[in-house]
Amino acid sequence: MRNLTMMTDLYQLTMMNGYFLQGKAKQQSVFDLFFRQKNTMNYVVYAGLDQAVDYIENLHFSSDDIEYLRSLNIFHPDFLNYLKTFRFTGDMYSVHEGDFVYPQEPLIIIKAPLIEAQLVETALLNIVSHQTLIATKSARIVQAARGKSVVEFGLRRAQGPDAGIYGARASIIGGCNGTSNVLTGQMFHIPVKGTHSHSWVMSFPSELDAFRAFADSYPDSCLLLVDTYDSVQGIKNAITVFRELKAKGHEPVGIRLDSGDLAYLSKIARRMLDEAGFTKAIVMASGDIDEYLLESLNNQGAKIDVYGVGTKLITSEDMPSLGGVYKMSAIEENGTLNPRMKISDSIVKVTNPGFKTLYRLYDKQSGMAAADLITLKTEALPDPITLTHETERWKTTTLKGYGKREMLYKIFDGGKNIYDSPSLDDIVKFAQSEKKRFWDEYKRIDNPQIYKVNVSDELYSLKQEILKSHKG
Amino acid sequence: MRNLTMMTDLYQLTMMNGYFLQGKAKQQSVFDLFFRQKNTMNYVVYAGLDQAVDYIENLHFSSDDIEYLRSLNIFHPDFLNYLKTFRFTGDMYSVHEGDFVYPQEPLIIIKAPLIEAQLVETALLNIVSHQTLIATKSARIVQAARGKSVVEFGLRRAQGPDAGIYGARASIIGGCNGTSNVLTGQMFHIPVKGTHSHSWVMSFPSELDAFRAFADSYPDSCLLLVDTYDSVQGIKNAITVFRELKAKGHEPVGIRLDSGDLAYLSKIARRMLDEAGFTKAIVMASGDIDEYLLESLNNQGAKIDVYGVGTKLITSEDMPSLGGVYKMSAIEENGTLNPRMKISDSIVKVTNPGFKTLYRLYDKQSGMAAADLITLKTEALPDPITLTHETERWKTTTLKGYGKREMLYKIFDGGKNIYDSPSLDDIVKFAQSEKKRFWDEYKRIDNPQIYKVNVSDELYSLKQEILKSHKG
Repeated sequence: MRNLTMMTDLYQLTMMNGYFLQGKAKQQSVFDLFFRQKNTMNYVVYAGLDQAVDYIENLHFSSDDIEYLRSLNIFHPDFLNYLKTFRFTGDMYSVHEGDFVYPQEPLIIIKAPLIEAQLVETALLNIVSHQTLIATKSARIVQAARGKSVVEFGLRRAQGPDAGIYGARASIIGGCNGTSNVLTGQMFHIPVKGTHSHSWVMSFPSELDAFRAFADSYPDSCLLLVDTYDSVQGIKNAITVFRELKAKGHEPVGIRLDSGDLAYLSKIARRMLDEAGFTKAIVMASGDIDEYLLESLNNQGAKIDVYGVGTKLITSEDMPSLGGVYKMSAIEENGTLNPRMKISDSIVKVTNPGFKTLYRLYDKQSGMAAADLITLKTEALPDPITLTHETERWKTTTLKGYGKREMLYKIFDGGKNIYDSPSLDDIVKFAQSEKKRFWDEYKRIDNPQIYKVNVSDELYSLKQEILKSHKG
Repeated sequence: MRNLTMMTDLYQLTMMNGYFLQGKAKQQSVFDLFFRQKNTMNYVVYAGLDQAVDYIENLHFSSDDIEYLRSLNIFHPDFLNYLKTFRFTGDMYSVHEGDFVYPQEPLIIIKAPLIEAQLVETALLNIVSHQTLIATKSARIVQAARGKSVVEFGLRRAQGPDAGIYGARASIIGGCNGTSNVLTGQMFHIPVKGTHSHSWVMSFPSELDAFRAFADSYPDSCLLLVDTYDSVQGIKNAITVFRELKAKGHEPVGIRLDSGDLAYLSKIARRMLDEAGFTKAIVMASGDIDEYLLESLNNQGAKIDVYGVGTKLITSEDMPSLGGVYKMSAIEENGTLNPRMKISDSIVKVTNPGFKTLYRLYDKQSGMAAADLITLKTEALPDPITLTHETERWKTTTLKGYGKREMLYKIFDGGKNIYDSPSLDDIVKFAQSEKKRFWDEYKRIDNPQIYKVNVSDELYSLKQEILKSHKG
């Protein structure tokens, strides 16, 4: 386990030293981690909790760390001494890994002494934003693949080792069926996939020699990449080798296209394979695939059975970061937890004050998700309940006899890890079952129906009060 | 040192097992790592060599790794046994970290037994592509900052820990003056920067209280973030505290803007600070900054002294991956190293065959870079030399009495690490001196003059021959 305690912004430590010197170190505080609406993002698939929990649990400063900090000449010796026994002693709440969530919803809530809650901001945002981003991109791509298998192939184009390793894990949470990444497979018990590249072909005198050699080494898992020199000739050579395999009693797996016009070539490949009697041989395709290309391939009737998706998934190319933020929502003053709110001219940048929680309300008849509700932690939900849009106040919805689920649950209790870490399989199952509780219209790639995320009337009133007192 | 041996695509191991079974494991091979032209990329600042060298040096499979591979039921027991003593025994060439390079140029050349050269593809691409991408983005942003200081602030928005840690290092190679990332500072002896965030302000009853407390803890390094509630009021409060500091004999550092219209607010801030007599107090700005916003701020006469650059740098937001590839260029057959070439309809996807090297030619009078030349390793350069454009053959340039530098040099020799690892300071100095040898026109953010990257006549003839023999 790598210790990421020092992986933080200097200002966190500068503030911690300041809190310490100002006698504020033990002041209780509440911070919310959430995403702001950004670009194409509608729903978000939450991921990264597992690594975030490890991070919090392992928080400590080594003596080397403290000596390095001392060398910066900005920290008080008493503060550096305090860091020697620093541990996280607070509470952490989080939604389930794999849950479907939305912008503005608190996904992690930290309730801890100010000095501790401050430190963890940077690493939590780094870990959770990245993995949630890739899980979300994966879910969009898998959805556009319409039931066809999607394999994550992006390691070489990922932004460094962790982006590849944890990005592959997040891809699985988003719905991919496997990864090319062997280390991720080993770490998280995920199916690994892959056969050969152009260099296999180029290492032989001819493509046919290369295909024969591959079939010789892998008679029962022979999937051949056909575009090293010319895709159509490559398919012909593959069929030659498939016939030889079949004569020896083996079933070939299929071919992979990695360049050229995938719609056109996949139809040619399908026809050639079928005409040669290999109707079960699959056509796999890779190369610059994302949800938009998939929709185009669908519309063109491409004949592709499995997609290998690389760069555009592992970097979330069209939106390579979520607007993740971590904002103070309450602070202890004279023994009372008082709400706090970041104010801005822009309504989406005004934060939700107070110690809160998050509910999902389900329609009683259909069992489908009807709305999410952000409330103060102390509120009870009435039934029937009327939800009012935060800015367009004339828009209301009333739910009667609804089902509800509190989405945030306790992970650390007074510094103690009480997280019952699910297996990745269980996370994937939960993600898939929750995804099914959303109507397709909410999950459309373009112009989705906007899912209702409301704040409770009590929270709304509190925001208005604070805004007024600031004006005053 | 993390062992990243298993951080590879499954197909590398599938091919290795195949090479092993086909008696090809020891066949000598040559592979080139290079980037394809992509989007806005003109020049590229090469970074990541240091981590790549560590990776190669530490290559080995643990017994746990081998048992995991055995569990996949695709590898021959003799191959798994061979992996127990697997080490890299080949040669590796690379350009210097921090060098200015261009698409299509070989940046790393591996000459090694096929089975070894195959394994390292994925991790080398992952490490070098990521760090080069961020160093390049940093160089573009630093250039647009026109001599103003730029600090890397992106850790929280980076794609996982490594992207933050090594991205910050790469930002320094690209020209940033510091980072907020404490772990990167500690690992690579880089200046770390940062003062306080909104939560410092929100943890006090009022902004003025918060500023006074910060000044009390940091009287000689007091830089105040002014936009928690209202930027203009924040500047007023900062000035109040600066006056109190000055009365006690301390010089305030300045203020930071983090939202709103940075052009407008920076002018207001400058005027307010100047009128209050704080002409030396700096205006720092952060928030969605990249090279394009910087050019706009320059054009509007914004009064900003230091830029904090986050998300758009650390993710290279408008282009989050380089098109890095690793292609076989030669393979041993009957004792001879024969050239190999990937063929494609698209000229940029046709690779350069043969065991090659890379030269930079400098104009004798000005000392400025005149052209780069990709040649076969065995070629001598004539003087005068005539360079011919690869596709537009009528375009020629003749250089006489030119200076030359072979850009690729040996890092591993028969598996032995002979890399004389420079300090990050030395890498930065080299990067800056080499950058100065390029005319500004080549470094323009938009529509740069295209720098000449040529292939030698001998290499050109070889490509044509191979293409003809494939047609025949």
